[in-house]
Amino acid sequence: MQIIYLDNAATTIPDSKATEQAMEFIQDKFYNPSAIYRQGIFVHTALDNAREGMLQFLDANRTHNFIFTSCGTESNNQVFQFAVKSNKNIVVNLGEHPSVYNIAKHLEQKGYEVRYAKLARSGAVDLEHLLSLVDDKTTLVSVMHINNETGAINNIDRIAHLVRDKTKNHRCYVHVDGVQAFAKITYNLSENIDFYTVSAHKIGGLKGVGGTYYKKNIPFTPFIYGGGQEMGLRSGTENVFGNMQFFYATSNRMANLKQCWQNVVDCKSYIQEYLEKELFKILYVQNNSPYILTISAVGLRGEVLLHMLEEEGVLCSTGSACSSNAKYKYSRIIQATSLKNPEIEGVLRLSFGYKTTLAECKQATEKLNSCAKKLKAKLL
Amino acid sequence: MQIIYLDNAATTIPDSKATEQAMEFIQDKFYNPSAIYRQGIFVHTALDNAREGMLQFLDANRTHNFIFTSCGTESNNQVFQFAVKSNKNIVVNLGEHPSVYNIAKHLEQKGYEVRYAKLARSGAVDLEHLLSLVDDKTTLVSVMHINNETGAINNIDRIAHLVRDKTKNHRCYVHVDGVQAFAKITYNLSENIDFYTVSAHKIGGLKGVGGTYYKKNIPFTPFIYGGGQEMGLRSGTENVFGNMQFFYATSNRMANLKQCWQNVVDCKSYIQEYLEKELFKILYVQNNSPYILTISAVGLRGEVLLHMLEEEGVLCSTGSACSSNAKYKYSRIIQATSLKNPEIEGVLRLSFGYKTTLAECKQATEKLNSCAKKLKAKLL
Repeated sequence: MQIIYLDNAATTIPDSKATEQAMEFIQDKFYNPSAIYRQGIFVHTALDNAREGMLQFLDANRTHNFIFTSCGTESNNQVFQFAVKSNKNIVVNLGEHPSVYNIAKHLEQKGYEVRYAKLARSGAVDLEHLLSLVDDKTTLVSVMHINNETGAINNIDRIAHLVRDKTKNHRCYVHVDGVQAFAKITYNLSENIDFYTVSAHKIGGLKGVGGTYYKKNIPFTPFIYGGGQEMGLRSGTENVFGNMQFFYATSNRMANLKQCWQNVVDCKSYIQEYLEKELFKILYVQNNSPYILTISAVGLRGEVLLHMLEEEGVLCSTGSACSSNAKYKYSRIIQATSLKNPEIEGVLRLSFGYKTTLAECKQATEKLNSCAKKLKAKLL
Repeated sequence: MQIIYLDNAATTIPDSKATEQAMEFIQDKFYNPSAIYRQGIFVHTALDNAREGMLQFLDANRTHNFIFTSCGTESNNQVFQFAVKSNKNIVVNLGEHPSVYNIAKHLEQKGYEVRYAKLARSGAVDLEHLLSLVDDKTTLVSVMHINNETGAINNIDRIAHLVRDKTKNHRCYVHVDGVQAFAKITYNLSENIDFYTVSAHKIGGLKGVGGTYYKKNIPFTPFIYGGGQEMGLRSGTENVFGNMQFFYATSNRMANLKQCWQNVVDCKSYIQEYLEKELFKILYVQNNSPYILTISAVGLRGEVLLHMLEEEGVLCSTGSACSSNAKYKYSRIIQATSLKNPEIEGVLRLSFGYKTTLAECKQATEKLNSCAKKLKAKLL
């Protein structure tokens, strides 16, 4: 059966061209980048060039540095462990990915003060509430760029600007989890963003690879100590193959950013238009990423619908794949946007990627309509 | 030019069969292991089976669990961050890899007490000194299995037994950095070893993959918080390709462990026998790993010799590739074994792997002799 993969916010199929390009670092150029013979130096130089490339992609003003890490989760944890201080506070929000939310919760359990900003109905952060939580003891404000469940785009530059206004706290760090935005939307790092964390496998890279952009003047500290790789900020022999593949995949995404954007805009618009209105409600329409479409088959169970769609070859999600947790009957994030329970229960997330085609989305729309109709009929 | 690669303690060429086997997890089976449709569950199950396999390889008595991590360095850091306690102490030794030594140093700088056991001349830990440092406030003793620079094998089971003797501290955790021993020597985890950390790329796996064996009853805690992967102990989307390749590579090593051992014994013996005695001194002969041969071209500079050998296609090391650090003129570990400076200056480490052949070692021996002779003649 043909698979229509609409779960690209969970992971994407690795970019085969990028993988092929990087294969030499598994084969001929397998050397340790710390080795002092020329084969080692070659690998080290390749990684440095990849780092430089990663900076060029996002940091036109050259205000930042970049380190490779093992995943977005590690990147986020490192930022939090760096910024947390006794007798100070950290401001996050209820929409954050578990890799931010759960490190914040962990630090809270250890006795640090964490403040949680609400979400607006749009799925974006409630800016007014967030600003009300920031004071002169705030050491970190963390706001994700694009919400992985609602698709809402936070205006991170405006938020960072307001947070660091003189009347607020101009010394506090601003962290942005950029995992769902990086290499998907046109963006250039502003000076107000101190940390911007990214993940490879959401854009055609491999699982097990991530990275952190951090502002140059920040006395950033290691999270993993050892041989001093990544300019001393991330020890452990470099994941050469993974890092190089990430760089190549990013490069391919960046070269086609606008076409890809237009394509997913078309995909999302098509589904929005042709989903039957009496079966599905479109959620979170305001200032939303074209890569994510969150809908609710109000009155039906999203999970049941997901498995019916699975039988038809359409793969999607009921929420973040990362937050599959028995503790929460419903998604923490979706709940935070003040939906009613029948809406929450029917939530499905369709997410698009660099490989998604409009033809697939047309087929998927039909199947969504027919499955929901069938399920509804069963319940009558 | 043909390359004779004798730097397998730094990294090994990835096992191409294992890579090929794992490739399906980059291609067809790229799904997120947390996804709730069957393709995700398939990947999740594959990882669980790989975890089970990793346990079968090392833990016949089923006393331990296993988690995949991003590298041996991360594994070591997690153990130290778990075991460190205020007003208690940790005992390490001067022979440890930077991934242990530098996290210990970091914790010391943060105010925790760290005690450093000496090395014996053999390159192994000075057992008597180590035991003298352990008291009822010791929460962790860390001893590597095989020293990556000296090749010395520490009798970890005996050390663990003595450390946990009633007259010492039966509640203290024992951690073993097994990176240079795992899947190279016959070993089965004993009950006295609480943590045993391993790395993929030293045995034909990929860089960016490691693992931790930990005893079942230990209330081990996460180091990276997030989506709760790896039974809640290591968040971040799993490096599926890397972990599966690691499992396959380990499987291949384990299936040929004795042949590989005999082969490297032959390789090492040959070089030891045929290196010219007036040019080279063999260091650390007592209870030493056949995978590592540390020699000194006494009176010559190891680094110069290394680059001459490089010109001849022989790649080796002057010490740990991970500890290339301008702060130390000489290797910290080699210095700790009480060699004289002319011996230290001439150190070369030859290290063998699953791909090394006796024919290569014969050629390398000739080149070692001729290069050292040439360099010596230049200096006269």
